[in-house]
Amino acid sequence: MDIKTVQKELKAAKLSGRLFMFGNMFIDEDILPEENQIRKLTGFTGSYALLFITPAKAFLFVDGRYELQAKKEVNLRRTEIVKLSETSLPRWLQNNFAKTAARISYNPWTITPKTLSSLQHALPRAEFIPAEDADRRLSPKKVKVFTHQKKFTGKTSKEKLAEFAAHLKKSGLDAFLVTSAANASWLLNLRSDALPYTPVFRAFVLVEKNASYKIFAENTDKEGALPFQKLAEILPLYAKIGADFSTMPAIISSFAPGIVNYPDIITDWKAVKNPVELKGVRSAHLRDGVAITKFLFWLSKNHKGKTETDITAKLLDFRKKELNFYSESFAPIAGSGANAAIVHYNPANQTPSLLKKNSVLLLDTGAQYYDGTTDITRTIALGTPSADMIEKNTLVLKAHIALASAVFPKQTGGNELDLIARQPLLKQGLDFAHGTGHGVGFFSDVHEGPARISVHAKGSAPLQTGMITSVEPGYYKENAFGIRIENLYAVKPQKGTPFLHFEVLTLVPLDKKLINKYLLTTEELNWLNRYHRQVFLSLKKYLTRQELEWLRDACSPL
Amino acid sequence: MDIKTVQKELKAAKLSGRLFMFGNMFIDEDILPEENQIRKLTGFTGSYALLFITPAKAFLFVDGRYELQAKKEVNLRRTEIVKLSETSLPRWLQNNFAKTAARISYNPWTITPKTLSSLQHALPRAEFIPAEDADRRLSPKKVKVFTHQKKFTGKTSKEKLAEFAAHLKKSGLDAFLVTSAANASWLLNLRSDALPYTPVFRAFVLVEKNASYKIFAENTDKEGALPFQKLAEILPLYAKIGADFSTMPAIISSFAPGIVNYPDIITDWKAVKNPVELKGVRSAHLRDGVAITKFLFWLSKNHKGKTETDITAKLLDFRKKELNFYSESFAPIAGSGANAAIVHYNPANQTPSLLKKNSVLLLDTGAQYYDGTTDITRTIALGTPSADMIEKNTLVLKAHIALASAVFPKQTGGNELDLIARQPLLKQGLDFAHGTGHGVGFFSDVHEGPARISVHAKGSAPLQTGMITSVEPGYYKENAFGIRIENLYAVKPQKGTPFLHFEVLTLVPLDKKLINKYLLTTEELNWLNRYHRQVFLSLKKYLTRQELEWLRDACSPL
Repeated sequence: MDIKTVQKELKAAKLSGRLFMFGNMFIDEDILPEENQIRKLTGFTGSYALLFITPAKAFLFVDGRYELQAKKEVNLRRTEIVKLSETSLPRWLQNNFAKTAARISYNPWTITPKTLSSLQHALPRAEFIPAEDADRRLSPKKVKVFTHQKKFTGKTSKEKLAEFAAHLKKSGLDAFLVTSAANASWLLNLRSDALPYTPVFRAFVLVEKNASYKIFAENTDKEGALPFQKLAEILPLYAKIGADFSTMPAIISSFAPGIVNYPDIITDWKAVKNPVELKGVRSAHLRDGVAITKFLFWLSKNHKGKTETDITAKLLDFRKKELNFYSESFAPIAGSGANAAIVHYNPANQTPSLLKKNSVLLLDTGAQYYDGTTDITRTIALGTPSADMIEKNTLVLKAHIALASAVFPKQTGGNELDLIARQPLLKQGLDFAHGTGHGVGFFSDVHEGPARISVHAKGSAPLQTGMITSVEPGYYKENAFGIRIENLYAVKPQKGTPFLHFEVLTLVPLDKKLINKYLLTTEELNWLNRYHRQVFLSLKKYLTRQELEWLRDACSPL
Repeated sequence: MDIKTVQKELKAAKLSGRLFMFGNMFIDEDILPEENQIRKLTGFTGSYALLFITPAKAFLFVDGRYELQAKKEVNLRRTEIVKLSETSLPRWLQNNFAKTAARISYNPWTITPKTLSSLQHALPRAEFIPAEDADRRLSPKKVKVFTHQKKFTGKTSKEKLAEFAAHLKKSGLDAFLVTSAANASWLLNLRSDALPYTPVFRAFVLVEKNASYKIFAENTDKEGALPFQKLAEILPLYAKIGADFSTMPAIISSFAPGIVNYPDIITDWKAVKNPVELKGVRSAHLRDGVAITKFLFWLSKNHKGKTETDITAKLLDFRKKELNFYSESFAPIAGSGANAAIVHYNPANQTPSLLKKNSVLLLDTGAQYYDGTTDITRTIALGTPSADMIEKNTLVLKAHIALASAVFPKQTGGNELDLIARQPLLKQGLDFAHGTGHGVGFFSDVHEGPARISVHAKGSAPLQTGMITSVEPGYYKENAFGIRIENLYAVKPQKGTPFLHFEVLTLVPLDKKLINKYLLTTEELNWLNRYHRQVFLSLKKYLTRQELEWLRDACSPL
């Protein structure tokens, strides 16, 4: 299908436009390239967009990250770029269609009732018509489903189902349809190879209040899984059924008109890691630290003549040797020189770029281990960094330490911690245009809700003991260089007080060549030296003699 | 009236109970002792409570500050204390009356529609009956109303009314009933002597979209003011009329059933001080600084044998000599020794207490000048303070400096700044049980919304250029001593950046005897020395030779 074909169909059906959301029936989760309808229609390769096609024109809605990229990738005669930094889809529709009785077609599998009703609210006179050819946009590729073993999860699926059923009873529901793939995967202790970086099993699970359940999935080897069409037969059998309208496809409401919106409690439950999961996460980070340290030693000897993709491949080789390794947890970001100033730079989408001398390399990578998910950014000096790079890296380090060593009361939201990290930068008139932290899943999404550390995430969920979050302040100088320092932390009680603080999980040295110790307070310097001592003591058993010498030097006190 | 009489009436009318809110028709604003019905009925003297009387018993609802005091003051055979720290009025009603068709009487002048509907929601089977003898609970004392001159306000009432009328037109309203006394006072540039500390004119103002207006007030010398009964005649004349349901008495809805809830924009407008107001505030703080400095010099020579109330009287004498002084801005808090550990200690309500030697004096006072409102807390060593007092005061100073020197983006809410201040205390396992800051009015309420700096005020209003806020971290050791350091600050843009920061308004030295400079970072020490230099240079012209020598020493660098 191309834009012209869509436009012909619109004219034939006397429609004002057709809306394409990003993604498939698993709303807001990762998708495969072949599931990306907007890419097929427009050529746009970014990780988020919306597309609205009218009989005369196509409108591609992109956010600040992608304004330049979209202009390069799409045919601008046929497609107009709309900036989500300046408007929103509902507002844009209101400005363009409020005065007419518009007829708008959409795919009810790829939009939530919440989003759909915001559009209906914006255009009260319009008619929103589910497209006849609407489908679930799932790749036909056969998916292998596997069990996430109890030795990793710490809890059987039976236990989780029993707790969930008890929760259902309290809520007065007969059944609940779990429509988030990550939540379904957690509940059933199942995973799959559907996606390259996120091992979730893309399924819906219908749980009854007696804890029995049905799986709905397609193109998988999971025995007993029902096709999604069966939902239309089965859902109406329950008197009182709930689902989370922020992840449920709108079409489900047409199968079960009585279905009620109810927040999926699994989102909160799975964010709090249990003791077995936390033990695994600590161990996975130790192994990840060993792999990255071996890589950093190798890099120190071998960076000349290498490209950004050469080194991410090498790092993957080191990780593959570690116990319980499964995959990378996202497309590795390796930005050298000016490329590092692009926050989500993906070298694999570019022509290979040699590592720049006398600059910094920003390396943001992660791995999925069966016993934990990692996500780490190190900024590494290659050759002799400039005084400006050293100063800015030191400021970002101060920002990192400020938040990493914070103590906070229970019920603190991530938005209430963000500015603690930003103070050292803001006091110099500097800032960075992304959040300071995100929740992290357990052998699941590397970006996992509900935790977020961002002043823009007003009213974000309170941080609780057992949650895992990244701390990743940065600084980006366009066309020059970029810096980010990211560790993962577990939230835990502060001994002898009613407060919470962070336990560091990531164990990899920070590049001292990029630190001006005279800009650090005594407390900050102590933090750094203590962290390096912990890294050294944790990793030393697992290295060759040469690697150990390199680490000893990397971790020696400043 | 006493509790027994109320109970007799309840029985005669077959009512399940009668609810008494705190305060009068000006909801959530200060009241006079003679307007305090709960005090009259129970003897409780605290500044907030709720009372619910059933035919058999009375229930007094108090918050954490007043649990002990209430037990001492009320007759416990007749009255049960209910802790608002453990329940809320709606929840308590639900627990006690949900199963019956309760008939509950209330005063519709002293409750908002918002609160009333939360009670109806808690008890859907109950009937809420406006009391027949319900009144506005306004003191019959005759009130003098006066104009707040344009040289102070910077804007005429006519200009404010024109802007407000333009806002009404945009909102599609024909008229708006301003029911907040502080907002009415701001709009009309009027003030009154109704209350001892807050010079607001307690009136309702009905503004039409053509900017004409009517004043409703009672027991005042304001010519042309209409009695409140007239509201029942006049409000129904407008097709579309709005009021803010968070300050409007519920009875108004019975006069004008079509009245719609609309936030009173004046709350936001008056929080942002205009250039004339800000100039006045700076000047008022200079004069207040002179008065307090003269007082501190006097105190250093004369504290022996003095009581807490002796010294607040003396400070008032000094303030009275300053230009544009009108009154204190709240009941002065002077707590010596263990009394300082009581956050809102009011020495005037106690038997006179001599200042303790070798301890600290916590002095939290403020003044109303025609050109600005002040609020300042200093903690002063009398004799030789203990090492613990010095350490804790230094921690509180670090907390104060951390927030006072913060830089933050636009749209930052006060809850997102609070933890910056608390870090130095939380890191020692310490905290304080009150907010870190509150907005401050202009010759008006010393506590003014919408700004608040508190991690408990989730989603609080963003701080904006021109707002004034206190910064007042503290530390309280029960039965031992208390510390608080409070300055007022104006929010202003940080030069050359898109960010905001604080401009200090309060100009009074901090007691160096209570500061251990070795616990301060270089940045903190620089802040302190810079602040003291600014205080000295600002005040030096206005002092006697002896006072100046004292100030030179008090402000010399550490």
